[in-house]
Amino acid sequence: MQQSTKIRRLVSLFSRLPGVGEKTAQRYVLHLLTSDPEVARDLGRELGGLHDELRPCARCGNIAEVVPTEEPTVCDICKDPRRDTRLLCVVGRIHDLLAIERTGAMRGRYFVLGRLLSPLEGIGPEELPVPRLVARIADEGVTEVIVATPPSVDGEATALLLKRELAATGVTMTRIASGVPHGGDLEYADPITMGRALSGRQSL
Amino acid sequence: MQQSTKIRRLVSLFSRLPGVGEKTAQRYVLHLLTSDPEVARDLGRELGGLHDELRPCARCGNIAEVVPTEEPTVCDICKDPRRDTRLLCVVGRIHDLLAIERTGAMRGRYFVLGRLLSPLEGIGPEELPVPRLVARIADEGVTEVIVATPPSVDGEATALLLKRELAATGVTMTRIASGVPHGGDLEYADPITMGRALSGRQSL
Ligand SMILES: [Zn+2]
Ligand SMILES: [Zn+2]
Repeated sequence: MQQSTKIRRLVSLFSRLPGVGEKTAQRYVLHLLTSDPEVARDLGRELGGLHDELRPCARCGNIAEVVPTEEPTVCDICKDPRRDTRLLCVVGRIHDLLAIERTGAMRGRYFVLGRLLSPLEGIGPEELPVPRLVARIADEGVTEVIVATPPSVDGEATALLLKRELAATGVTMTRIASGVPHGGDLEYADPITMGRALSGRQSL
Repeated sequence: MQQSTKIRRLVSLFSRLPGVGEKTAQRYVLHLLTSDPEVARDLGRELGGLHDELRPCARCGNIAEVVPTEEPTVCDICKDPRRDTRLLCVVGRIHDLLAIERTGAMRGRYFVLGRLLSPLEGIGPEELPVPRLVARIADEGVTEVIVATPPSVDGEATALLLKRELAATGVTMTRIASGVPHGGDLEYADPITMGRALSGRQSL
């Protein structure tokens, strides 16, 4: 098939999205091509400015809107004075933070690890931001750390690593209850299940 | 959940892609946010220029690259002098044209209807570009029209409409063989099935 370079470039860029293969990517491109040109243009403009307007929060790793007059960039949750600074919820990915926020059951703040311990993928303890987490616990007077890594092999391994590494800080450590099914993805847990997992948390 | 306007805008734009719900859209946005900024920027740039660089072919409706010195915009297939102008393949959507091209079995050219007859969706005969198709058959001396609409209710209804509407032109009309399973989508047919459907075409 003679396909234009432009289309091939776009298909290959869309294919970099999670779960998107070449056929799906081509479907997206053809859909945009045969739709109102405004859709492609708006999507293009928003994507072009994405990283200028949003950045990881300097404190927790959540997504934060860049405010030119404020440096470093801090997210809405970290800025919220009603949040209990003594309670810190550690998650693997931003997706998981958002899933927990949807429950409305989290009174504290977050710390996004960015990745989980994974012997199979060659991700060792030194690749997790444990020193930053330890520093934050001390700086902010955190008294309880809720470990909300997923109930998977890597998630459990990460929880055990944190239990060991944070022992010297003296914080109470808890683990979200496994209301979330084993091997499940936090992102797809419904708010009720997720809320129960939070409220039924146990000592780690 | 407190989510930035920027993210909400992007999620809603991604949700306009076929088969993309809000969760998938959010996954895409978070993935782009936590990936190399170049990916979002490149995708943004390509999408922004999409409709300036590509346009429907004035003759067949396929995607054509805009060449500033050439007006009207005509696609590579319509420009190819080795294509048999007497053989015209009528398809519903560009996706189907691309699926047929992948077989390498089509020696002629195409005509993209853009939609199928669909009483259920309220798409009547007057919404199909039949007059343009009739004119093209006359202009280019087409002697055989292969009707390659899908083997679905709407696809069959469209084929029957074309049989009636093109009768006066005197062209030989054929229908692709139903090697493609009933209710199936041409886009997902493998090249061999699609090739057989083409070579086994029958008089309509
Ligand atoms: Zn933050
Ligand atoms: Zn063309």
